[in-house]
Amino acid sequence: MAIIRVTKEFRFEMAHVLQNYDGPCRNVHGHSYVLYVTLSGKPVDDTDRGNNGMVIDFGELKKIVEQEITEKFDHSIVVAGYMPAEKLAEYKKLFENIIITPYQPTCENLVAGFADVLLDKFPEGVTLHSLKLYETATAFAEWYASDNHR
Amino acid sequence: MAIIRVTKEFRFEMAHVLQNYDGPCRNVHGHSYVLYVTLSGKPVDDTDRGNNGMVIDFGELKKIVEQEITEKFDHSIVVAGYMPAEKLAEYKKLFENIIITPYQPTCENLVAGFADVLLDKFPEGVTLHSLKLYETATAFAEWYASDNHR
Amino acid sequence: MAIIRVTKEFRFEMAHVLQNYDGPCRNVHGHSYVLYVTLSGKPVDDTDRGNNGMVIDFGELKKIVEQEITEKFDHSIVVAGYMPAEKLAEYKKLFENIIITPYQPTCENLVAGFADVLLDKFPEGVTLHSLKLYETATAFAEWYASDNHR
Repeated sequence: MAIIRVTKEFRFEMAHVLQNYDGPCRNVHGHSYVLYVTLSGKPVDDTDRGNNGMVIDFGELKKIVEQEITEKFDHSIVVAGYMPAEKLAEYKKLFENIIITPYQPTCENLVAGFADVLLDKFPEGVTLHSLKLYETATAFAEWYASDNHR
Repeated sequence: MAIIRVTKEFRFEMAHVLQNYDGPCRNVHGHSYVLYVTLSGKPVDDTDRGNNGMVIDFGELKKIVEQEITEKFDHSIVVAGYMPAEKLAEYKKLFENIIITPYQPTCENLVAGFADVLLDKFPEGVTLHSLKLYETATAFAEWYASDNHR
Repeated sequence: MAIIRVTKEFRFEMAHVLQNYDGPCRNVHGHSYVLYVTLSGKPVDDTDRGNNGMVIDFGELKKIVEQEITEKFDHSIVVAGYMPAEKLAEYKKLFENIIITPYQPTCENLVAGFADVLLDKFPEGVTLHSLKLYETATAFAEWYASDNHR
Protein backbone atom coordinates (compact mmCIF):
# COMPACT_ATOMS: atom_id res chain seq x y z
CA MET A 1 0.00 0.00 0.00
CA ALA A 2 1.16 3.50 -0.79
CA ILE A 3 1.76 6.10 1.90
CA ILE A 4 -0.89 8.79 1.48
CA ARG A 5 -1.45 12.20 3.07
CA VAL A 6 -4.99 13.23 3.98
CA THR A 7 -6.10 16.76 4.76
CA LYS A 8 -9.22 18.31 6.21
CA GLU A 9 -10.08 22.01 6.26
CA PHE A 10 -11.50 23.80 9.32
CA ARG A 11 -12.69 27.36 9.89
CA PHE A 12 -13.02 29.42 13.04
CA GLU A 13 -13.42 33.04 14.03
CA MET A 14 -10.98 34.31 16.63
CA ALA A 15 -9.81 37.58 18.14
CA HIS A 16 -6.29 38.21 19.37
CA VAL A 17 -3.98 40.93 20.65
CA LEU A 18 -0.29 41.25 19.79
CA GLN A 19 1.45 42.48 22.91
CA ASN A 20 3.94 45.35 22.31
CA TYR A 21 3.29 45.32 18.57
CA ASP A 22 4.06 48.60 16.89
CA GLY A 23 0.90 48.91 14.80
CA PRO A 24 -2.86 48.37 14.84
CA CYS A 25 -2.47 44.67 15.74
CA ARG A 26 -1.70 45.68 19.35
CA ASN A 27 -5.45 46.31 19.66
CA VAL A 28 -8.04 43.55 19.91
CA HIS A 29 -8.96 42.46 16.39
CA GLY A 30 -10.29 39.33 14.74
CA HIS A 31 -9.58 37.08 11.81
CA SER A 32 -11.42 34.34 9.93
CA TYR A 33 -8.89 31.55 10.39
CA VAL A 34 -8.69 28.56 8.07
CA LEU A 35 -6.79 25.53 9.34
CA TYR A 36 -5.65 22.56 7.23
CA VAL A 37 -4.67 19.45 9.16
CA THR A 38 -2.62 16.91 7.18
CA LEU A 39 -2.00 13.36 8.38
CA SER A 40 0.16 10.68 6.80
CA GLY A 41 -0.17 6.90 6.81
CA LYS A 42 -1.01 3.75 4.90
CA PRO A 43 -4.68 3.22 4.04
CA VAL A 44 -6.31 0.30 5.88
CA ASP A 45 -6.02 -2.84 3.72
CA ASP A 46 -8.80 -5.14 4.93
CA THR A 47 -11.86 -5.71 2.73
CA ASP A 48 -13.95 -6.74 5.73
CA ARG A 49 -13.63 -3.33 7.35
CA GLY A 50 -15.78 -0.33 6.53
CA ASN A 51 -12.80 2.00 6.69
CA ASN A 52 -10.92 -0.14 4.18
CA GLY A 53 -8.88 2.18 1.95
CA MET A 54 -8.75 5.03 4.47
CA VAL A 55 -5.75 6.45 6.31
CA ILE A 56 -8.31 7.74 8.79
CA ASP A 57 -12.01 8.34 8.33
CA PHE A 58 -12.38 12.04 7.45
CA GLY A 59 -15.19 12.07 10.02
CA GLU A 60 -12.85 10.89 12.77
CA LEU A 61 -10.21 13.44 11.79
CA LYS A 62 -12.90 16.14 11.89
CA LYS A 63 -14.09 15.09 15.33
CA ILE A 64 -10.60 15.13 16.85
CA VAL A 65 -9.65 18.55 15.48
CA GLU A 66 -12.99 20.11 16.39
CA GLN A 67 -12.71 18.79 19.94
CA GLU A 68 -9.06 19.76 20.45
CA ILE A 69 -8.88 23.03 18.52
CA THR A 70 -11.79 24.65 16.76
CA GLU A 71 -14.48 24.25 19.45
CA LYS A 72 -12.09 25.88 21.92
CA PHE A 73 -10.72 28.67 19.74
CA ASP A 74 -13.87 29.57 17.79
CA HIS A 75 -15.28 32.90 19.00
CA SER A 76 -12.55 33.22 21.60
CA ILE A 77 -10.07 35.96 22.28
CA VAL A 78 -6.46 34.83 22.65
CA VAL A 79 -3.93 36.85 24.62
CA ALA A 80 -0.35 36.29 25.75
CA GLY A 81 0.04 35.33 29.39
CA TYR A 82 3.08 37.61 29.65
CA MET A 83 1.10 40.83 29.22
CA PRO A 84 0.90 43.12 32.30
CA ALA A 85 -1.29 41.60 35.03
CA GLU A 86 -3.69 44.55 35.27
CA LYS A 87 -4.29 44.51 31.52
CA LEU A 88 -4.91 40.77 31.61
CA ALA A 89 -7.41 41.30 34.46
CA GLU A 90 -9.33 43.81 32.34
CA TYR A 91 -9.55 41.40 29.41
CA LYS A 92 -10.82 38.69 31.74
CA LYS A 93 -13.63 40.99 32.85
CA LEU A 94 -14.60 41.96 29.31
CA PHE A 95 -14.50 38.63 27.47
CA GLU A 96 -16.34 35.42 28.22
CA ASN A 97 -14.17 33.04 26.20
CA ILE A 98 -10.61 34.14 26.81
CA ILE A 99 -7.66 31.83 26.10
CA ILE A 100 -4.33 32.73 27.68
CA THR A 101 -1.36 31.32 25.81
CA PRO A 102 2.22 31.11 27.08
CA TYR A 103 3.21 32.65 23.73
CA GLN A 104 2.39 35.70 21.62
CA PRO A 105 -0.64 34.52 19.59
CA THR A 106 0.81 35.17 16.15
CA CYS A 107 -0.14 32.91 13.26
CA GLU A 108 3.30 31.24 13.59
CA ASN A 109 2.98 30.50 17.32
CA LEU A 110 -0.63 29.39 17.02
CA VAL A 111 0.15 26.83 14.30
CA ALA A 112 3.09 25.51 16.37
CA GLY A 113 0.89 25.40 19.47
CA PHE A 114 -1.85 23.52 17.60
CA ALA A 115 0.78 20.99 16.44
CA ASP A 116 1.82 20.39 20.07
CA VAL A 117 -1.80 19.72 21.01
CA LEU A 118 -2.55 17.42 18.05
CA LEU A 119 0.70 15.41 17.87
CA ASP A 120 -0.45 12.46 20.01
CA LYS A 121 -4.17 12.56 19.30
CA PHE A 122 -4.38 10.31 16.24
CA PRO A 123 -4.59 6.49 16.02
CA GLU A 124 -1.44 4.36 15.80
CA GLY A 125 0.14 4.37 12.35
CA VAL A 126 -1.30 7.80 11.53
CA THR A 127 1.11 10.70 12.00
CA LEU A 128 0.63 14.44 12.00
CA HIS A 129 2.38 15.55 8.82
CA SER A 130 1.72 19.30 8.73
CA LEU A 131 -0.61 22.14 9.63
CA LYS A 132 -1.44 25.22 7.59
CA LEU A 133 -3.14 28.19 9.22
CA TYR A 134 -4.53 31.09 7.19
CA GLU A 135 -4.76 34.26 9.29
CA THR A 136 -6.07 36.42 6.46
CA ALA A 137 -7.13 35.57 2.91
CA THR A 138 -3.57 36.19 1.70
CA ALA A 139 -1.28 35.16 4.57
CA PHE A 140 -0.66 31.85 6.28
CA ALA A 141 1.84 29.96 8.45
CA GLU A 142 2.74 26.26 8.27
CA TRP A 143 4.21 23.72 10.69
CA TYR A 144 5.82 20.61 9.19
CA ALA A 145 6.86 17.60 11.25
CA SER A 146 9.84 17.15 8.90
CA ASP A 147 11.09 20.69 9.67
CA ASN A 148 10.95 19.92 13.39
CA HIS A 149 12.35 16.39 13.73
CA ARG A 150 8.97 14.99 14.71
CA MET B 1 18.67 25.55 -15.14
CA ALA B 2 16.62 25.26 -11.97
CA ILE B 3 14.44 22.26 -11.24
CA ILE B 4 10.82 23.42 -11.34
CA ARG B 5 7.51 21.78 -10.45
CA VAL B 6 4.52 22.38 -12.71
CA THR B 7 0.92 21.66 -11.78
CA LYS B 8 -2.34 21.53 -13.70
CA GLU B 9 -5.81 21.34 -12.17
CA PHE B 10 -8.55 19.00 -13.46
CA ARG B 11 -12.17 18.50 -12.48
CA PHE B 12 -14.50 15.55 -12.89
CA GLU B 13 -17.82 14.34 -11.50
CA MET B 14 -17.84 10.78 -10.20
CA ALA B 15 -20.04 8.48 -8.16
CA HIS B 16 -18.73 5.76 -5.88
CA VAL B 17 -19.78 3.22 -3.27
CA LEU B 18 -17.80 2.33 -0.15
CA GLN B 19 -18.29 -1.39 0.42
CA ASN B 20 -19.07 -2.33 4.06
CA TYR B 21 -18.86 1.29 5.20
CA ASP B 22 -20.80 2.00 8.36
CA GLY B 23 -22.51 5.20 7.24
CA PRO B 24 -24.24 6.86 4.29
CA CYS B 25 -21.17 6.41 2.05
CA ARG B 26 -22.11 2.74 1.61
CA ASN B 27 -24.81 4.00 -0.77
CA VAL B 28 -24.11 5.30 -4.26
CA HIS B 29 -23.21 8.98 -4.02
CA GLY B 30 -21.21 11.47 -6.03
CA HIS B 31 -18.52 14.08 -5.57
CA SER B 32 -17.09 16.93 -7.62
CA TYR B 33 -13.46 15.81 -7.65
CA VAL B 34 -10.58 18.21 -8.24
CA LEU B 35 -7.25 16.66 -9.20
CA TYR B 36 -3.88 18.47 -9.20
CA VAL B 37 -1.11 16.75 -11.16
CA THR B 38 2.41 17.97 -10.34
CA LEU B 39 5.44 17.12 -12.47
CA SER B 40 9.08 17.96 -11.83
CA GLY B 41 11.92 18.63 -14.24
CA LYS B 42 14.29 21.12 -15.81
CA PRO B 43 12.75 23.57 -18.29
CA VAL B 44 13.89 23.07 -21.91
CA ASP B 45 16.93 25.28 -22.58
CA ASP B 46 17.01 25.76 -26.36
CA THR B 47 16.05 29.14 -27.84
CA ASP B 48 15.22 27.53 -31.21
CA ARG B 49 12.41 25.47 -29.71
CA GLY B 50 8.87 26.73 -29.15
CA ASN B 51 8.69 24.95 -25.79
CA ASN B 52 11.88 26.67 -24.62
CA GLY B 53 11.53 27.41 -20.90
CA MET B 54 8.90 24.72 -20.27
CA VAL B 55 9.18 21.58 -18.15
CA ILE B 56 6.29 20.30 -20.26
CA ASP B 57 3.78 22.25 -22.30
CA PHE B 58 0.71 22.67 -20.03
CA GLY B 59 -1.33 21.62 -23.09
CA GLU B 60 0.55 18.32 -23.34
CA LEU B 61 0.15 17.67 -19.60
CA LYS B 62 -3.58 18.38 -19.96
CA LYS B 63 -3.94 15.98 -22.89
CA ILE B 64 -2.22 13.10 -21.07
CA VAL B 65 -4.21 13.43 -17.85
CA GLU B 66 -7.52 13.86 -19.68
CA GLN B 67 -6.83 10.76 -21.77
CA GLU B 68 -5.61 8.58 -18.90
CA ILE B 69 -7.84 9.76 -16.06
CA THR B 70 -10.55 12.37 -16.39
CA GLU B 71 -12.18 11.21 -19.64
CA LYS B 72 -12.49 7.74 -18.11
CA PHE B 73 -13.62 8.68 -14.62
CA ASP B 74 -15.85 11.67 -15.45
CA HIS B 75 -19.52 10.74 -15.02
CA SER B 76 -18.62 7.19 -14.06
CA ILE B 77 -19.52 5.12 -11.05
CA VAL B 78 -16.59 3.39 -9.36
CA VAL B 79 -17.09 0.25 -7.29
CA ALA B 80 -14.76 -2.24 -5.61
CA GLY B 81 -14.34 -5.51 -7.47
CA TYR B 82 -14.47 -7.38 -4.17
CA MET B 83 -18.14 -6.59 -3.50
CA PRO B 84 -20.58 -9.57 -3.64
CA ALA B 85 -21.02 -10.82 -7.22
CA GLU B 86 -24.81 -10.42 -7.29
CA LYS B 87 -24.54 -6.78 -6.12
CA LEU B 88 -21.90 -6.09 -8.75
CA ALA B 89 -24.19 -7.61 -11.42
CA GLU B 90 -26.98 -5.23 -10.38
CA TYR B 91 -24.72 -2.19 -10.67
CA LYS B 92 -23.62 -3.34 -14.12
CA LYS B 93 -27.25 -3.43 -15.23
CA LEU B 94 -28.02 0.02 -13.83
CA PHE B 95 -25.00 2.08 -14.85
CA GLU B 96 -23.58 2.67 -18.30
CA ASN B 97 -20.10 3.85 -17.28
CA ILE B 98 -19.06 1.58 -14.43
CA ILE B 99 -15.39 1.26 -13.41
CA ILE B 100 -14.48 -1.73 -11.26
CA THR B 101 -11.34 -1.15 -9.19
CA PRO B 102 -9.32 -3.82 -7.38
CA TYR B 103 -9.49 -1.50 -4.36
CA GLN B 104 -12.09 0.32 -2.26
CA PRO B 105 -12.55 3.62 -4.19
CA THR B 106 -11.72 5.96 -1.31
CA CYS B 107 -9.99 9.25 -2.02
CA GLU B 108 -6.74 7.69 -0.74
CA ASN B 109 -6.90 4.61 -2.98
CA LEU B 110 -8.02 6.62 -6.00
CA VAL B 111 -5.10 9.03 -5.77
CA ALA B 112 -2.67 6.11 -5.38
CA GLY B 113 -4.33 4.31 -8.31
CA PHE B 114 -4.07 7.44 -10.49
CA ALA B 115 -0.36 7.67 -9.61
CA ASP B 116 0.16 4.09 -10.80
CA VAL B 117 -1.52 4.92 -14.11
CA LEU B 118 0.36 8.19 -14.69
CA LEU B 119 3.87 7.21 -13.50
CA ASP B 120 5.26 6.21 -16.92
CA LYS B 121 3.16 8.47 -19.15
CA PHE B 122 5.32 11.60 -19.25
CA PRO B 123 8.30 12.42 -21.50
CA GLU B 124 11.86 11.55 -20.47
CA GLY B 125 13.29 13.92 -17.87
CA VAL B 126 9.84 14.81 -16.54
CA THR B 127 8.80 12.92 -13.41
CA LEU B 128 5.51 12.61 -11.59
CA HIS B 129 6.11 14.52 -8.36
CA SER B 130 2.73 14.36 -6.60
CA LEU B 131 -1.03 14.18 -6.99
CA LYS B 132 -3.67 15.92 -4.90
CA LEU B 133 -7.29 14.81 -5.08
CA TYR B 134 -10.10 16.81 -3.49
CA GLU B 135 -13.12 14.61 -2.75
CA THR B 136 -15.16 17.39 -1.19
CA ALA B 137 -14.55 21.14 -0.88
CA THR B 138 -12.82 20.58 2.47
CA ALA B 139 -11.12 17.16 2.23
CA PHE B 140 -8.36 15.82 0.01
CA ALA B 141 -5.74 13.07 -0.27
CA GLU B 142 -2.22 13.34 -1.69
CA TRP B 143 0.26 10.90 -3.18
CA TYR B 144 3.94 11.96 -3.20
CA ALA B 145 6.65 10.11 -5.11
CA SER B 146 9.06 10.95 -2.29
CA ASP B 147 6.81 9.23 0.28
CA ASN B 148 6.77 6.10 -1.85
CA HIS B 149 10.38 5.66 -3.06
CA ARG B 150 9.42 6.45 -6.65
CA MET C 1 11.05 27.28 19.08
CA ALA C 2 9.61 25.40 16.11
CA ILE C 3 10.68 26.12 12.54
CA ILE C 4 7.71 27.64 10.75
CA ARG C 5 7.00 28.52 7.13
CA VAL C 6 5.16 31.76 6.37
CA THR C 7 3.53 32.61 3.06
CA LYS C 8 2.07 35.75 1.55
CA GLU C 9 0.01 35.96 -1.65
CA PHE C 10 0.54 38.61 -4.33
CA ARG C 11 -1.28 39.41 -7.56
CA PHE C 12 -0.18 41.20 -10.69
CA GLU C 13 -1.30 41.59 -14.28
CA MET C 14 1.35 40.94 -16.90
CA ALA C 15 1.63 40.41 -20.65
CA HIS C 16 4.22 38.19 -22.29
CA VAL C 17 5.24 36.68 -25.62
CA LEU C 18 6.62 33.18 -26.10
CA GLN C 19 9.25 33.39 -28.81
CA ASN C 20 9.00 30.64 -31.50
CA TYR C 21 6.04 29.02 -29.74
CA ASP C 22 3.88 26.97 -32.07
CA GLY C 23 0.48 28.28 -30.94
CA PRO C 24 -1.38 31.41 -29.90
CA CYS C 25 1.08 32.13 -27.05
CA ARG C 26 3.58 33.43 -29.63
CA ASN C 27 1.38 36.56 -29.74
CA VAL C 28 1.26 39.17 -27.00
CA HIS C 29 -1.23 38.04 -24.36
CA GLY C 30 -1.77 38.60 -20.65
CA HIS C 31 -2.42 36.66 -17.49
CA SER C 32 -3.58 37.45 -13.98
CA TYR C 33 -0.61 36.06 -12.09
CA VAL C 34 -0.80 34.97 -8.46
CA LEU C 35 2.50 34.59 -6.61
CA TYR C 36 2.97 32.86 -3.24
CA VAL C 37 6.23 33.62 -1.45
CA THR C 38 7.14 31.18 1.33
CA LEU C 39 9.89 31.87 3.88
CA SER C 40 11.18 29.60 6.61
CA GLY C 41 12.64 30.40 10.02
CA LYS C 42 12.21 30.41 13.77
CA PRO C 43 9.75 32.94 15.20
CA VAL C 44 11.36 35.73 17.23
CA ASP C 45 11.41 34.69 20.93
CA ASP C 46 11.65 37.94 22.87
CA THR C 47 8.63 39.24 24.78
CA ASP C 48 9.97 42.79 24.73
CA ARG C 49 9.80 42.98 20.96
CA GLY C 50 6.68 43.83 18.97
CA ASN C 51 7.49 41.19 16.36
CA ASN C 52 7.74 38.52 19.08
CA GLY C 53 6.36 35.28 17.66
CA MET C 54 6.93 36.23 14.02
CA VAL C 55 9.30 34.66 11.49
CA ILE C 56 9.02 37.96 9.67
CA ASP C 57 6.32 40.61 9.92
CA PHE C 58 3.88 39.89 7.06
CA GLY C 59 4.04 43.63 6.35
CA GLU C 60 7.81 43.49 5.87
CA LEU C 61 7.52 40.44 3.61
CA LYS C 62 4.88 42.29 1.58
CA LYS C 63 7.06 45.38 1.21
CA ILE C 64 10.09 43.43 -0.02
CA VAL C 65 8.18 41.39 -2.61
CA GLU C 66 6.23 44.40 -3.88
CA GLN C 67 9.45 46.39 -4.28
CA GLU C 68 11.46 43.60 -5.93
CA ILE C 69 8.78 41.89 -8.02
CA THR C 70 5.18 43.01 -8.26
CA GLU C 71 5.70 46.77 -8.65
CA LYS C 72 8.07 46.04 -11.53
CA PHE C 73 6.13 43.30 -13.28
CA ASP C 74 2.57 44.59 -12.75
CA HIS C 75 1.15 45.95 -16.02
CA SER C 76 4.38 45.20 -17.85
CA ILE C 77 5.08 43.21 -20.97
CA VAL C 78 7.89 40.67 -20.66
CA VAL C 79 9.83 39.49 -23.70
CA ALA C 80 12.90 37.32 -24.25
CA GLY C 81 16.09 39.24 -25.04
CA TYR C 82 16.99 36.64 -27.64
CA MET C 83 14.16 37.53 -30.01
CA PRO C 84 15.17 39.14 -33.35
CA ALA C 85 16.47 42.70 -32.83
CA GLU C 86 13.99 44.37 -35.21
CA LYS C 87 11.05 42.70 -33.44
CA LEU C 88 12.40 43.78 -30.07
CA ALA C 89 12.73 47.35 -31.38
CA GLU C 90 9.05 47.32 -32.39
CA TYR C 91 7.95 46.16 -28.95
CA LYS C 92 10.03 48.90 -27.36
CA LYS C 93 8.18 51.48 -29.45
CA LEU C 94 4.75 50.09 -28.61
CA PHE C 95 4.99 49.41 -24.88
CA GLU C 96 5.85 51.76 -22.06
CA ASN C 97 6.73 49.17 -19.40
CA ILE C 98 8.72 46.50 -21.22
CA ILE C 99 10.91 44.03 -19.31
CA ILE C 100 13.52 42.14 -21.30
CA THR C 101 14.53 38.84 -19.70
CA PRO C 102 17.56 36.71 -20.63
CA TYR C 103 15.11 33.81 -20.71
CA GLN C 104 11.83 32.82 -22.37
CA PRO C 105 9.20 34.27 -19.98
CA THR C 106 7.35 31.03 -19.29
CA CYS C 107 5.79 30.46 -15.90
CA GLU C 108 8.71 28.10 -15.07
CA ASN C 109 11.44 30.59 -15.99
CA LEU C 110 9.65 33.49 -14.31
CA VAL C 111 9.34 31.66 -10.99
CA ALA C 112 13.04 30.66 -11.16
CA GLY C 113 13.97 34.23 -12.06
CA PHE C 114 11.94 35.62 -9.15
CA ALA C 115 13.74 33.19 -6.82
CA ASP C 116 17.11 34.52 -8.01
CA VAL C 117 15.99 38.07 -7.26
CA LEU C 118 14.52 37.29 -3.82
CA LEU C 119 17.13 34.86 -2.46
CA ASP C 120 19.25 37.42 -0.59
CA LYS C 121 16.57 40.01 0.22
CA PHE C 122 15.31 38.72 3.57
CA PRO C 123 16.69 39.29 7.08
CA GLU C 124 19.26 36.93 8.60
CA GLY C 125 17.78 33.68 9.84
CA VAL C 126 14.89 33.88 7.37
CA THR C 127 15.33 31.81 4.22
CA LEU C 128 13.42 31.69 0.95
CA HIS C 129 11.72 28.29 1.08
CA SER C 130 9.65 28.23 -2.13
CA LEU C 131 7.71 30.25 -4.68
CA LYS C 132 4.47 29.31 -6.40
CA LEU C 133 3.33 31.21 -9.49
CA TYR C 134 -0.14 30.75 -10.98
CA GLU C 135 -0.20 31.70 -14.66
CA THR C 136 -3.86 30.83 -15.15
CA ALA C 137 -6.56 29.77 -12.70
CA THR C 138 -5.64 26.10 -13.28
CA ALA C 139 -1.89 26.06 -13.96
CA PHE C 140 1.10 27.01 -11.85
CA ALA C 141 4.87 26.50 -11.50
CA GLU C 142 6.87 26.18 -8.28
CA TRP C 143 10.50 26.75 -7.29
CA TYR C 144 11.74 25.02 -4.13
CA ALA C 145 15.09 25.77 -2.49
CA SER C 146 15.35 22.07 -1.56
CA ASP C 147 15.05 21.04 -5.23
CA ASN C 148 17.88 23.38 -6.13
CA HIS C 149 20.47 22.95 -3.37
CA ARG C 150 19.82 26.44 -2.04
